[in-house]
Amino acid sequence: MSEQKIPYKIYLEESEMPTAWYNLRADMVNKPAPLLNGETLQPMTEDELSEVFCRELARQEMDDTTAYFPIPEKIRDFYKMYRPAPLVRAYCLEEKLQTPAKIYYKYEGGNTSGSHKLNSAIAQAYYAKEQGLTGVTTETGAGQWGTALSMACAYLGLDCKVYMVKVSYEQKPFRREVMRTYGASVTPSPSMDTAVGRKILAEHPGTGGSLGCAISEAVEVATNTPGYRYVLGSVLNQVMLHQSIIGLETKAALDKYNVKPDIIIGCAGGGSNLGGLIAPFMGEKLRGEADYQIIAVEPASCPSITRGVYAYDYCDTGAVCPLAKMYTLGSGFIPAATHAGGLRYHGMCPTLSQLYDDGLMEARSVQQTEVFEAAEYFARVEGILPAPESSHAIKVAIDEARKCIETGEEKTIVFGLTGTGYFDMFAYERFHDGKMTDYIPTEEELAAGRAKLPKVE
Amino acid sequence: MSEQKIPYKIYLEESEMPTAWYNLRADMVNKPAPLLNGETLQPMTEDELSEVFCRELARQEMDDTTAYFPIPEKIRDFYKMYRPAPLVRAYCLEEKLQTPAKIYYKYEGGNTSGSHKLNSAIAQAYYAKEQGLTGVTTETGAGQWGTALSMACAYLGLDCKVYMVKVSYEQKPFRREVMRTYGASVTPSPSMDTAVGRKILAEHPGTGGSLGCAISEAVEVATNTPGYRYVLGSVLNQVMLHQSIIGLETKAALDKYNVKPDIIIGCAGGGSNLGGLIAPFMGEKLRGEADYQIIAVEPASCPSITRGVYAYDYCDTGAVCPLAKMYTLGSGFIPAATHAGGLRYHGMCPTLSQLYDDGLMEARSVQQTEVFEAAEYFARVEGILPAPESSHAIKVAIDEARKCIETGEEKTIVFGLTGTGYFDMFAYERFHDGKMTDYIPTEEELAAGRAKLPKVE
Repeated sequence: MSEQKIPYKIYLEESEMPTAWYNLRADMVNKPAPLLNGETLQPMTEDELSEVFCRELARQEMDDTTAYFPIPEKIRDFYKMYRPAPLVRAYCLEEKLQTPAKIYYKYEGGNTSGSHKLNSAIAQAYYAKEQGLTGVTTETGAGQWGTALSMACAYLGLDCKVYMVKVSYEQKPFRREVMRTYGASVTPSPSMDTAVGRKILAEHPGTGGSLGCAISEAVEVATNTPGYRYVLGSVLNQVMLHQSIIGLETKAALDKYNVKPDIIIGCAGGGSNLGGLIAPFMGEKLRGEADYQIIAVEPASCPSITRGVYAYDYCDTGAVCPLAKMYTLGSGFIPAATHAGGLRYHGMCPTLSQLYDDGLMEARSVQQTEVFEAAEYFARVEGILPAPESSHAIKVAIDEARKCIETGEEKTIVFGLTGTGYFDMFAYERFHDGKMTDYIPTEEELAAGRAKLPKVE
Repeated sequence: MSEQKIPYKIYLEESEMPTAWYNLRADMVNKPAPLLNGETLQPMTEDELSEVFCRELARQEMDDTTAYFPIPEKIRDFYKMYRPAPLVRAYCLEEKLQTPAKIYYKYEGGNTSGSHKLNSAIAQAYYAKEQGLTGVTTETGAGQWGTALSMACAYLGLDCKVYMVKVSYEQKPFRREVMRTYGASVTPSPSMDTAVGRKILAEHPGTGGSLGCAISEAVEVATNTPGYRYVLGSVLNQVMLHQSIIGLETKAALDKYNVKPDIIIGCAGGGSNLGGLIAPFMGEKLRGEADYQIIAVEPASCPSITRGVYAYDYCDTGAVCPLAKMYTLGSGFIPAATHAGGLRYHGMCPTLSQLYDDGLMEARSVQQTEVFEAAEYFARVEGILPAPESSHAIKVAIDEARKCIETGEEKTIVFGLTGTGYFDMFAYERFHDGKMTDYIPTEEELAAGRAKLPKVE
């Protein structure tokens, strides 16, 4: 089909929407390492995992052989309310850059949660409901995940308790209000609700909290409340599975116009967006059917892939969660207070970590001021105000498109635009006022993080 | 086509998007009354109007006979970046209400400006650019219009000066930052930039400003700055023309599935959304080809249609703009500080005022707490977090759907969901905390507003 026929936005018909999630692990020769029980250091059993997560989600977490999981009809109905997400041809960006590259982005920010997080939130809430549970708990930092989960729970009539990092709770009162609009209870963490919260408050009065602490509180409440389970918005393999809807839709949209990407770019914190976006493409790569250059983009301030080590580590600072083998900076590593809250995580999803270790994808780190420059440039040209997290991918997409100007190559670049920046205007303000700074952890800081890794043979 | 075939969201193909705006006035027997020069009380000439507005926009403002205005290609390209807006079948809302009614909404909040305002912003900015102008000025209250204009100007490389009501400027710093992201200069009004601003500040030190004052400042700067003109986001007939894209897309989407609405509902402040949404339907009604129940919904706190008078009045509090014949509460009427900033305008678009006076549409007023109840209900069921303004239409759509439960009628209801509430969370917070109050102006307050109407024979 000729180049001219490609519209600005490719929407799949409802009938073209994926009906099954794709489990990338099924095609991996080197499977991601299993989660370990933090006490016994033995692989977690499904029964053990089911004490924290819903049973079906525990099953999905452990299944590395089933390639496709049918999406339950109720979830597909929910998806139809805000999906398919458009695959946008960035004609205006191409023209502005005067690049021969063809740029596409999968825009996941069009729903009220403002990000792709909703894709997994509805799945996790659905399985909780199906199991007859009455509620779920979770933590949230920047607030996208907490918002998404609140929406999913409102839809299904499930209680939702969100532990929000206290400093975010105070700095982002409007995020909190969106969650309240969806009926969630939002508690600043650390709180007096939990033993771990009380302990931390006693030790560190006035602390602003951390994601690690919020996770610990959410897990404690879930395991102590009958009919509750804990859910998590990234890092887990089950999340990658649900998020494969992003990549499946992207591939279906490209296939409609016989377009093959050369480069696929995604921002990477815990890996939920990147893992979802690349899933079917990486599958082709693993099966030897196609080759793609796949680039994970992470903040230089929290460089888990580019400067971390591949090792077993705790998923949370409080060490109450199982151990995962991943690229990590150490669960004790405290990233600088940058504005891409969704990327401030010390580790990377086990699936993606294994793929990276196998040389199947590359990784780059970028500084936040150059990320905001790219964000503002993009907003003015393409109209959409991107989240700081998403803007990491924009930055590298623009870099690659500029390389094409030099080489004359007409590469096709696809990147994930995971969300919108409506609740990040404080960060934009700092950028506009010239008050934004960059952070690069020193070798000593990284060494300190590594030193606290658990000893696992 | 069978009921089952209608998807959750109807997207037009790019090739199905309207290529011309529809000018409702061409089909009106009773034309809207002309704008009058405030000093001479004679109809404004195109030359006079062109001193304030771009020439092409002055021409569009006065043309009540040309039915279709081709949309310039550059504007159509811009539209392709964020349009077509989906027409959503509210299956979840229908199911939750257990109503036999079929509910659709045209969702205009998917773009970064967060509302339908962008449809006219790009048109007005385009004609300014075509005329060789270098910049435009405007006022903004809630901020949706200022954001939309900033985006349009950034796209076209046009300077944009926004006078933002001071109290909004201070209460909504993030709105301001979005505009800055798009390169606009945003000044709290009243300011020391203008004679009118300095005069008001001298008389009322510490005032929080008003839309009327901001308009006066923007007009003064536009007329005193070479290469500048003033632009306005609602009320004007030209704005209704550009916004007809909403209704044209809605009708095209419904026609694809052979759906005929029974009731069409829109919120109404200055009338930009309502006028656009109903345009082609009202056209059919005027031509005797079809009949529809059309309902304008306004806040009880600012009831220009339901409790105003049809008379010539100033468009701005400062009385620097031409006089328009409209349903009005008087330009001196100060509506209570409710949270639907976009509906706090004393008058109604001349075109809609004439249609209402001719009995071709009806109007209802609603209280803000019941509006927020509807907003939250809708958000939880349909996922989208609506703007307070849009929620006026939601409230009445739900009312009508509930009536169908009683009568058993399977009416088809279409309403305009004009925008999102991301920057209105302070209002939601007040609602959640039970601190929201309702306001109904007394007869005395209305009489005081009427008493200051200009004397025009």
